[in-house]
Amino acid sequence: MQKEEIAHYFKNLQDAICSSLEGLDGKAKFQEDNWERPGGGGGRSRVIQGGDLIEKGGVNFSAVHGDAPERMLSALKLGGKQFFATGVSIVLHPASPMVPIIHMNVRYFEMSDGTMWFGGGIDLTPHYVVPEDAAFFHKTLKETCDRHNTDYYERFRKWADDYFYIRHRSETRGIGGIFFDRLAPGQPAGKPGSSELPGPDKEALFAFVKDVGETFVPVYSEIANRRRGDSFGEREKTWQMLRRGRYVEFNLVWDKGTKFGLDTDGRTESILMSLPPVANWEYAHTAEPGSREEATLSYLKKGIDWTKQ
Amino acid sequence: MQKEEIAHYFKNLQDAICSSLEGLDGKAKFQEDNWERPGGGGGRSRVIQGGDLIEKGGVNFSAVHGDAPERMLSALKLGGKQFFATGVSIVLHPASPMVPIIHMNVRYFEMSDGTMWFGGGIDLTPHYVVPEDAAFFHKTLKETCDRHNTDYYERFRKWADDYFYIRHRSETRGIGGIFFDRLAPGQPAGKPGSSELPGPDKEALFAFVKDVGETFVPVYSEIANRRRGDSFGEREKTWQMLRRGRYVEFNLVWDKGTKFGLDTDGRTESILMSLPPVANWEYAHTAEPGSREEATLSYLKKGIDWTKQ
Repeated sequence: MQKEEIAHYFKNLQDAICSSLEGLDGKAKFQEDNWERPGGGGGRSRVIQGGDLIEKGGVNFSAVHGDAPERMLSALKLGGKQFFATGVSIVLHPASPMVPIIHMNVRYFEMSDGTMWFGGGIDLTPHYVVPEDAAFFHKTLKETCDRHNTDYYERFRKWADDYFYIRHRSETRGIGGIFFDRLAPGQPAGKPGSSELPGPDKEALFAFVKDVGETFVPVYSEIANRRRGDSFGEREKTWQMLRRGRYVEFNLVWDKGTKFGLDTDGRTESILMSLPPVANWEYAHTAEPGSREEATLSYLKKGIDWTKQ
Repeated sequence: MQKEEIAHYFKNLQDAICSSLEGLDGKAKFQEDNWERPGGGGGRSRVIQGGDLIEKGGVNFSAVHGDAPERMLSALKLGGKQFFATGVSIVLHPASPMVPIIHMNVRYFEMSDGTMWFGGGIDLTPHYVVPEDAAFFHKTLKETCDRHNTDYYERFRKWADDYFYIRHRSETRGIGGIFFDRLAPGQPAGKPGSSELPGPDKEALFAFVKDVGETFVPVYSEIANRRRGDSFGEREKTWQMLRRGRYVEFNLVWDKGTKFGLDTDGRTESILMSLPPVANWEYAHTAEPGSREEATLSYLKKGIDWTKQ
């Protein structure tokens, strides 16, 4: 299939997700903002605010193209002259501290010299880790992966652990999920050393990426509905604001996608839709021994296989 | 003078500044946190919170040394094996949106191969720019500079404009101030092409850096006292929270000092003392035409010579 078809699918995916999220929220509606990129292409940013479930969320679609900026070529270590990039990117910050923050992204990139790849992933950042929800989340992602390649989940959950890592805090952003980048047709899709060659074709990769995109609503709806009725007080709100501060730290200091966007003069407001409405910082905050906050911190590390918990 | 003498001066400067700031605030007191660096040296972090004037502020002293980490050598493009670094770093977030955020830093760095330099600066980030205060601030800095070298102010205010620039927003962090780095003995201190050679000796540079450090309290006290009684409401608080969001964006995305600290495994809590207690993000916020918020944005650009306003 052609790049136009992929962009078309992503645009419809944005529609479907926004419609589902409005239903899930039950109160707030998305506001839409259409924008054009001076060098070519544009996007459709959608923001939801002040909802019953979602305090602030963004669902962004873009399909941009044109002369590849120098900074882009060097960041991606590419030759070629013209680029095309399309994707859907989502971050939801729920009002309740008992409901996790979620992030999803699916994307496709190609250069005029024929280089092309898919990337994406879903990861969850609970303010309070609930092991049964974490297990449900990862098992669902594993099922999605397994439908396409039984090596994917293991490989991509490790990739998520490594990617969503706040190095200066020595903690993961949340409980991870899956992350993948530069999945290209014909390349081995399995673990290093796997016998799977020459690897999936473009159709198969696109089918996988679609499946990831379509996993987002059901997996998040289930978890949000499990937790949205849970009671909380000032203590939990305070903790949520501090965890949001960590989310900001990850996104602005370590997230390669954010950095790439800002470095290559992407649309700032769309890139920074991922930031929470409010975040707090407190000097040297420590969790009380034996508390739920401390338990959560103990889960923010690499290498936990939630499908086996 | 030896490095120990410089560190000793900086430590006393921290004491003097904290004492003055407690007097200025009138309510809150600093909490102290002594810490050691595993590889050598340590610091004394002081935080003030919930004051009458200062909502959250940090005044950090450190003097660290040891084997230079690889990442440090490559970031600074240095040879040598052992490093020594000492400095005082301050950020104050006032409670009132009518009082500006301020940042000050003085620092000294040397390597075992004899390379050495001073760096530092003061810059002001008003939530609402008041031109007469901006002019007073810059004129005071110019007087400090002029006592040492009449080329300094012009050179260092431009450096501040370039350094404290939020590229992805196309705006300066605030109204600038002075910034300088790698001021080394014997190097020309004036503008490129200036006849001033071989440049100031180490004593002269240290005298300048001391003067910068000692300018901080009087210049900020004057501005804070001018504005702390000004009335404000919800509108101004909302704007303050959004401007604090921009402060976070600058510090986490662009500030080389923060990045250097986090990359070289500096003490995270001391480095991130610069972050505000609370910050907000709102999608595509725009200032009302003709408002004070819009006027403020019009001042957030490079090249304004406030000493001539």
